[in-house]
Amino acid sequence: MPELRQNPATKEWVIIASERARRPEDLGSGARQATEAQKQACPFCPGKESLTPGEILAYREFGTNPDSPGWWIRIIHNKYAALAPDGQKRERTRLFDFFTMMNGLGEHEVIIESPHHDLTIATMEEKQVEELFLAYRERYITLSKNPQFEMVIIFKNHGIGAGTSLHHPHSQLIATPITPVHIRHRLEESMRYFDDNGRCVYCEMIEKEKAANERVIMETDNFIAISPFASRSPFETKVLPKKHASSFDGVSPADAKELAFVMRVILKKLYISLNNPDYNFVINSSPCHEKETEYFHWHIQILPRVSAVAGFELGSGIYINTVVPEEAAKYLRSVKAE
Amino acid sequence: MPELRQNPATKEWVIIASERARRPEDLGSGARQATEAQKQACPFCPGKESLTPGEILAYREFGTNPDSPGWWIRIIHNKYAALAPDGQKRERTRLFDFFTMMNGLGEHEVIIESPHHDLTIATMEEKQVEELFLAYRERYITLSKNPQFEMVIIFKNHGIGAGTSLHHPHSQLIATPITPVHIRHRLEESMRYFDDNGRCVYCEMIEKEKAANERVIMETDNFIAISPFASRSPFETKVLPKKHASSFDGVSPADAKELAFVMRVILKKLYISLNNPDYNFVINSSPCHEKETEYFHWHIQILPRVSAVAGFELGSGIYINTVVPEEAAKYLRSVKAE
Repeated sequence: MPELRQNPATKEWVIIASERARRPEDLGSGARQATEAQKQACPFCPGKESLTPGEILAYREFGTNPDSPGWWIRIIHNKYAALAPDGQKRERTRLFDFFTMMNGLGEHEVIIESPHHDLTIATMEEKQVEELFLAYRERYITLSKNPQFEMVIIFKNHGIGAGTSLHHPHSQLIATPITPVHIRHRLEESMRYFDDNGRCVYCEMIEKEKAANERVIMETDNFIAISPFASRSPFETKVLPKKHASSFDGVSPADAKELAFVMRVILKKLYISLNNPDYNFVINSSPCHEKETEYFHWHIQILPRVSAVAGFELGSGIYINTVVPEEAAKYLRSVKAE
Repeated sequence: MPELRQNPATKEWVIIASERARRPEDLGSGARQATEAQKQACPFCPGKESLTPGEILAYREFGTNPDSPGWWIRIIHNKYAALAPDGQKRERTRLFDFFTMMNGLGEHEVIIESPHHDLTIATMEEKQVEELFLAYRERYITLSKNPQFEMVIIFKNHGIGAGTSLHHPHSQLIATPITPVHIRHRLEESMRYFDDNGRCVYCEMIEKEKAANERVIMETDNFIAISPFASRSPFETKVLPKKHASSFDGVSPADAKELAFVMRVILKKLYISLNNPDYNFVINSSPCHEKETEYFHWHIQILPRVSAVAGFELGSGIYINTVVPEEAAKYLRSVKAE
């Protein structure tokens, strides 16, 4: 029988309908091999730096020049930015005393994860993924100090089904001048939980997941990866710091490296299990200027895009998941990836 | 410059980034012609009634038998139901004093819209679409009386990118035993607007849209179709009854026919403009047992799936839309479809 489950943090419900399940190996979106022509045209490959906006930050070999080869991580403005700084002020306008709007003030960056066109986090060296997470940290800390921004959102779209058009491994960062209601609702629910129970709901979740011992995928000294009780899609994974912290900007370099280790292992497990699936991940952190709260707890959500978001999900916010989270966790635990 | 816009009803923000725009004709997902083999195997075609669960309701020729040809609209239980009645009680269970769950009690129906495998609402006769909306109304009224259900959600997934696997024209209905937080938030926002302003936010929206006169696509005596001020995707369309009503169950047969007329025209305009795009639509109504409120106003959302929902949308709830709503409305007004 299908089940309905409620996410204790957001109060969102999902349907666990294992009768609709297919085997993990049927879910994969297939291997993607870049064609030679696509490779030749790739603006993110070394030697093509002039095809992109100038670099904001790069980790590169000593003595090499900006916007030339020699980098192993390169961060640039998105050429087709959804939001941009442009020296604007953060002001709202009201039209017809009803419609509120504001300028598209913000920041939209692309983090080129590697000089190698065909790698992905799952297939990179551990050291490279560490550098990537150090770069995320560096940009997060810098941008979250900007008084114009409210949120700094770091995310990755892997594969066409997850919304990316470019094959070369890259992540993105968008800084917004508002806190979206979607995030406010999440914060409000965790605040309400704190007020009712005197504890952070995510700290409680970690404790309960360890007690239940069914959905934990892996654990290191400072991080834990779980298949959430109310996973929205097959093999959804949440990675949390075990120690309470509400903002990603408090992550130490050592923590960033440990997080990179966990993320690489999880993504490699997914890569192997689902045959290089399309996926998104996003770092959920507090609004920039609310650095530390007792009730929110930053974390990463990884969402393999192996099933469609259709009219029902869009209309109700209820996702239909075809794989039981306990089975997903069991399967992922069994896959060797370290 | 891109813009941020706030939906007055839900407080959700979107980015209007017209620099990212492509022309309407580039957005289409292309014509889909069913292959002969798919047609032969289709369980929704007349003569294949034995391949599906038995019919719940059918509009059929006098003297023909249930589960045999002769129908023009046929409603069945979904063979792979996400929720099912199964004589269960609506009870919740709490695990580890933390995780809440309940049985997958509900209803999941498929509304086969036509006996013709290759038609879609945009290409059907007007009379057929009227019958479809009369069938929606009939099922909505019946199911919304069931004390076990909280929400009755009628929706359509058209095309692979919108989450459907079967080509034969069909809609779906899911009745849930809970009101999801996503819908509660929408209700709460409209309630707050009512308390602050003494008016339904959707009634106000209709008035302001008529005053602005930029985003109205079409209007009949009792319905209006607009490109919302904060459209989440190119060519998103909202269809609203002009007279305040919070629940779809109050729709009269005459209203259902007029609504069918508007929906067919809008979907035909989209079909022509975007070359038969993938799309979802959903009927947003009150929870079943809160039939009439002053603050909520039922309506239909149509969302063409011409751009991907990626990591940023999933993480922030902010959609990135590449077409300015005023231009979408202007374009759709210009397309002849009546």
